[in-house]
Amino acid sequence: MFREKIKVLDCTIRDGGLVNNHQFDSRLVREVYRALSEAGVDYIELGYKNSKSLFSSKEYGKWKFCDDEDIKRVIDGIESDIKISVMVDVDRVDIEDVKPRKESPVHMIRVASYVKDIDKAIFLVNHFADKGYETTVNIMAISRALDNELNEALYQLEKECKAQVIYIVDSFGALYQETTEYLVKKFKNILKTKEVGMHAHNNQQLAFGNTIESIIHDANYVDGTVYGLGRAAGNCPLELLIGFLKNPKFNIRPILDLISKEFIPLREKMEWGYIIPYAITGMLDEHPKTAMALRSGDKKENYREFYESLVGDDLD
Amino acid sequence: MFREKIKVLDCTIRDGGLVNNHQFDSRLVREVYRALSEAGVDYIELGYKNSKSLFSSKEYGKWKFCDDEDIKRVIDGIESDIKISVMVDVDRVDIEDVKPRKESPVHMIRVASYVKDIDKAIFLVNHFADKGYETTVNIMAISRALDNELNEALYQLEKECKAQVIYIVDSFGALYQETTEYLVKKFKNILKTKEVGMHAHNNQQLAFGNTIESIIHDANYVDGTVYGLGRAAGNCPLELLIGFLKNPKFNIRPILDLISKEFIPLREKMEWGYIIPYAITGMLDEHPKTAMALRSGDKKENYREFYESLVGDDLD
Repeated sequence: MFREKIKVLDCTIRDGGLVNNHQFDSRLVREVYRALSEAGVDYIELGYKNSKSLFSSKEYGKWKFCDDEDIKRVIDGIESDIKISVMVDVDRVDIEDVKPRKESPVHMIRVASYVKDIDKAIFLVNHFADKGYETTVNIMAISRALDNELNEALYQLEKECKAQVIYIVDSFGALYQETTEYLVKKFKNILKTKEVGMHAHNNQQLAFGNTIESIIHDANYVDGTVYGLGRAAGNCPLELLIGFLKNPKFNIRPILDLISKEFIPLREKMEWGYIIPYAITGMLDEHPKTAMALRSGDKKENYREFYESLVGDDLD
Repeated sequence: MFREKIKVLDCTIRDGGLVNNHQFDSRLVREVYRALSEAGVDYIELGYKNSKSLFSSKEYGKWKFCDDEDIKRVIDGIESDIKISVMVDVDRVDIEDVKPRKESPVHMIRVASYVKDIDKAIFLVNHFADKGYETTVNIMAISRALDNELNEALYQLEKECKAQVIYIVDSFGALYQETTEYLVKKFKNILKTKEVGMHAHNNQQLAFGNTIESIIHDANYVDGTVYGLGRAAGNCPLELLIGFLKNPKFNIRPILDLISKEFIPLREKMEWGYIIPYAITGMLDEHPKTAMALRSGDKKENYREFYESLVGDDLD
């Protein structure tokens, strides 16, 4: 029997925006919104709420800023029960840009934070919660978190933070099932009053497997993206997640159509997915930025040389 | 610490041969053999031992038949500790074609069988074992096996069969981790004197995850293929498996080179991997042949229509 508490959040446009500087045109975003609404997905995340004093709107598309007016235009006239999420990075948001929940089309704000910034994340979350939003903290680069620091952060979140959900974010696609199980159990054990979420990257083709693993151990918020679109290797493919979950409210058909019509052509223009340099950074537990740089140069298939460049440092 | 008992079998040329009627040229097979030998892989499987009275050597390449002389030519002069495996299908082999082990370059024969053919598989394995070969039984389409019939087959294998290893073969790429765990535990429980193996297909991007799952529960023989090459969605990528396993005898570098130089160009000519129709047959627990037919026609991106064609039958 299905577990009703499981909520699916699609972050195709948000994580995919990291591939194209958030330059998705409104037509595509509208099609994604329409399809995911029909598919019964619970949340759609459209981008970041970044301060325009920090980033140029010439360099970045509108989903880097997620103005309420842009969101309203893109969803206008489409019948939907889906909730809208935006992401906020610590130190990059101007909180005065965020209107009270009742004046905004946004339902949820997710604050992305490293363990070391957890105090800042708590401040932001509590501020947004007081404005009426659903809130989460997404702990990035979890595969690099030291256990004592992570424990301290989790106890602090449980005690001081109004977020309903705390996410495990496998930014580097480095987790295997055993560590996923260890982390979900730890989160569940400390975060007595909160739900646990999972946001996986697909460097080692484990995003879906680790998401299932997190569900087995009682994570109830899971992220996916259409056809796995997302930074570098991308994320857990939403279509697989919807094929797996048994809640009859989900319908895979609109997602299949969306992939046929929009994402197969899009893949010709944007690169993401299972590509060896991303697999290498995943297995070495490294940020994918070196691999992304490689892929934009003329040595993009020189895997061995790339591998040596990452393992060759002598440390003492 | 690593588990020394874990053996890695590469079946790139054998399972990949199902994509191109076993038409790999000898140069490529030689390069694969050389690289896997350097990588410390334990076994390499080159193809099937099929009867030439059943299949035409005009239609199929030489790795459909795996004549000892062809194998000898392809490995000649390459220093290697890798063992050579060939696969045999029930009812398709002429056992007189198989010389005694001492006269052959082949070390291992794996007999692929459905549960219903287990008596035939046992006969073949015992025959080959008596000729001096290492032997396995690979139970295909395990996601469709009825529990009572599978139990009976496993007890019979334990009692009557000389195979050292019994493989779980997820032919349809339909297993999730929970069923993988269930099956490996069942196999281990009944097959007291044998090792358990895992051969996964990647329809739902779970081949690597399920292979890890099988290792967690004590399977010691695991299959991979270079860059995941194999029928339809392909198999567990060998490079990921080698990146995961901790035995210092393994070296990923020659595999990275092999992918750069041979498999990236090959992928331009042959299709395999994560492709939505294969994901659909995986999630519906269906043979990939309908999806393979779709991909060779002009409606190959019509995913929704394909999905409806599979779920639309009324049964009573």
